[in-house]
Amino acid sequence: MSQDFTDFFSHRANNLQESEIRALFSVVSRPEVISLAGGMPNLSRLPLHGIAEVTDTLISTHGESALQYGNGVGWDPLRSQIVELMRHDGIDGDPENVVITTGSQQALDLVTGLFINSGDLILAESPSYVGALGVFRSHVADVEQVEMDQDGLVPAALEQAIANAQAQGRRIKFLYTIPNFHNPAGICLSAERRPLIVEICKHHNILIVEDNPYGLLGFRSDPAPALQSYWPEGVIYLGSFSKIFAPGYRIGWALMPPALCEKMTWASEAAILSPSMMGQMSISRYLSDFDWYAQVQTFRGLYRERWEIMNAALERYLPQCQWTEPQGGFYTWLTLPPGLDSKKMLPAAVEGLVAYVPGSAFYFDGQGRDKLRLSFCYPPIETIAEGIRRLGVVITKHQS
Amino acid sequence: MSQDFTDFFSHRANNLQESEIRALFSVVSRPEVISLAGGMPNLSRLPLHGIAEVTDTLISTHGESALQYGNGVGWDPLRSQIVELMRHDGIDGDPENVVITTGSQQALDLVTGLFINSGDLILAESPSYVGALGVFRSHVADVEQVEMDQDGLVPAALEQAIANAQAQGRRIKFLYTIPNFHNPAGICLSAERRPLIVEICKHHNILIVEDNPYGLLGFRSDPAPALQSYWPEGVIYLGSFSKIFAPGYRIGWALMPPALCEKMTWASEAAILSPSMMGQMSISRYLSDFDWYAQVQTFRGLYRERWEIMNAALERYLPQCQWTEPQGGFYTWLTLPPGLDSKKMLPAAVEGLVAYVPGSAFYFDGQGRDKLRLSFCYPPIETIAEGIRRLGVVITKHQS
Repeated sequence: MSQDFTDFFSHRANNLQESEIRALFSVVSRPEVISLAGGMPNLSRLPLHGIAEVTDTLISTHGESALQYGNGVGWDPLRSQIVELMRHDGIDGDPENVVITTGSQQALDLVTGLFINSGDLILAESPSYVGALGVFRSHVADVEQVEMDQDGLVPAALEQAIANAQAQGRRIKFLYTIPNFHNPAGICLSAERRPLIVEICKHHNILIVEDNPYGLLGFRSDPAPALQSYWPEGVIYLGSFSKIFAPGYRIGWALMPPALCEKMTWASEAAILSPSMMGQMSISRYLSDFDWYAQVQTFRGLYRERWEIMNAALERYLPQCQWTEPQGGFYTWLTLPPGLDSKKMLPAAVEGLVAYVPGSAFYFDGQGRDKLRLSFCYPPIETIAEGIRRLGVVITKHQS
Repeated sequence: MSQDFTDFFSHRANNLQESEIRALFSVVSRPEVISLAGGMPNLSRLPLHGIAEVTDTLISTHGESALQYGNGVGWDPLRSQIVELMRHDGIDGDPENVVITTGSQQALDLVTGLFINSGDLILAESPSYVGALGVFRSHVADVEQVEMDQDGLVPAALEQAIANAQAQGRRIKFLYTIPNFHNPAGICLSAERRPLIVEICKHHNILIVEDNPYGLLGFRSDPAPALQSYWPEGVIYLGSFSKIFAPGYRIGWALMPPALCEKMTWASEAAILSPSMMGQMSISRYLSDFDWYAQVQTFRGLYRERWEIMNAALERYLPQCQWTEPQGGFYTWLTLPPGLDSKKMLPAAVEGLVAYVPGSAFYFDGQGRDKLRLSFCYPPIETIAEGIRRLGVVITKHQS
């Protein structure tokens, strides 16, 4: 008999792995390491004193509501504000179909639970967001990753993946996609391809889960229309305040096709009863009392400047590598010279006082060892070039 | 083929039901109805202006941390404060084994996911918390409910339930229990029985999930030692700030047996990445900057007064009924005169402008139609006696 109950674990628990992101948290916290690993937004330009004041008033005047339970689906005024916000993505939504969650991560976890039985198939981009792969693993899903090029998901590769699944008699539960400023690939699904991808999914009756945390963070422009705008009945759209405001309240949302909204609400109620009222009311005040879109434009400039510094440093220190050229978001995706392995090289990099996320984190099957993700969002701006220089030293050492 | 993807739902989604609590939210919000249904804490005596001021300072001075992502397991200073807080329950914990979650509801959801495969068996009290039954249903668990008397879970009944499961060759994944001021039964597991219950579980190698949101809210005394204090290796202890402070930040925790802590952390990271830093830091400040235990004593007096008013009204208006006499917490559990059905009677009660939770909500198999739960925690104090009077009118009408 068990002494410690670990043999009581479910299939789901047995399938859980330590996240590669988690292992990095401890590295990031060492001050001498320049971390180009984390995906934390840069909050240095938030109007903290103004936010403090508005929050003070919120608690003084509405504290009994803000500190109380809410309902499972989310606070109505914020649901309406979210619909207004999504107009920037070309979405004409109904507040009734918005379910507010503990970050968009929870929305993805709940959606996965709504559709996935153990062994079911999900399509995702190759590479894909490490946190999404973690959710899919925790539900014992199987994941097939589909090729991208510089314009995003490749339609012919999607058709082929669907044909392969059909040939094996497997039903695809959904396509998970990040159309804007992809994490980790740093690229966008082109405006021209969007209707094509939707048509393929519609034709084969495949639900789309569209994850869009970075859409408003284009360096120079608003995003192309969301996939949701082409097919509201077949796209679950996930949104987040973590990158356009701040992640500290853990508030995100899902815009659901109407037929799927009720179950999503029930699933959220079972999991957390209700999202934080304090978080919802605080973000609602931020949207109403501040010029949140001007702040987004501040963020765009901030991240663009950082990317330009990183790009110049890459050209200077890593001429032997290739990397994607993001037009927004937080990341570039770098290909190492032949023969190098980003996972094996990481301890040496940390010894050289620089950190990144190895490419294998973004593949379900451990591919991607010749790739790595670099983030320009969070490190102090004056350290970015030095971080790339250090990475150059490590790579050069491993080439010889 | 599906038009709306509802035939893509997982077994878990198909097993989700509308929570009976949810249906009540719309009733509660009608101002003319006196709701004795909700389990919301009474926040009327919180020092809101002081909290507002402390929060203002927190954001002004530490906003970049408070509004940022945290790590998955929780913020270390709060984990240490939680360990201090649990000493009131006789628990000698280690901060390393505390996992902070989006309310203790999420802790229960994660624990259930760690252990339950579809069809697995959970033991719970009869009756049990409606929100826990919702979680268990959402994981497609089976639940066997075990008799309670005025001293809580009956040891002989627990032995019998275990024997029955063994006779059927079924493995019990855990016992879910609320030892203090039970929801909905309003009673405590006596101090004498606690070691007996633990010994039974230990003997049969059954993990215990101890849910303790109300423990510090005894009208006159601190709680008996937690089950966790008798068996740290075999008890997962769930705690919450929702009732001893406020639920608006959605911060709860699990104290895990050491061998189970890592998987719990990974499960939480998959589900939400990290709990709210703003919530964690705000609650940490509340614990350090306010006399939180004096506030708990204020809450005790407030709830005791309300219970005394409800009890007097029950004696006056419902002499034909029986009810439990809580020594703390939020609830009493009322037995109707023979032949009455609390679920069928609810529309008439709402028409008579009073609401309660029908007993069947607290049973996995729909029993309990002769019972109902009354809450004295939240309604305006001057409405409690009138609410009971209205309930008396409805019951008398249904008896004739």
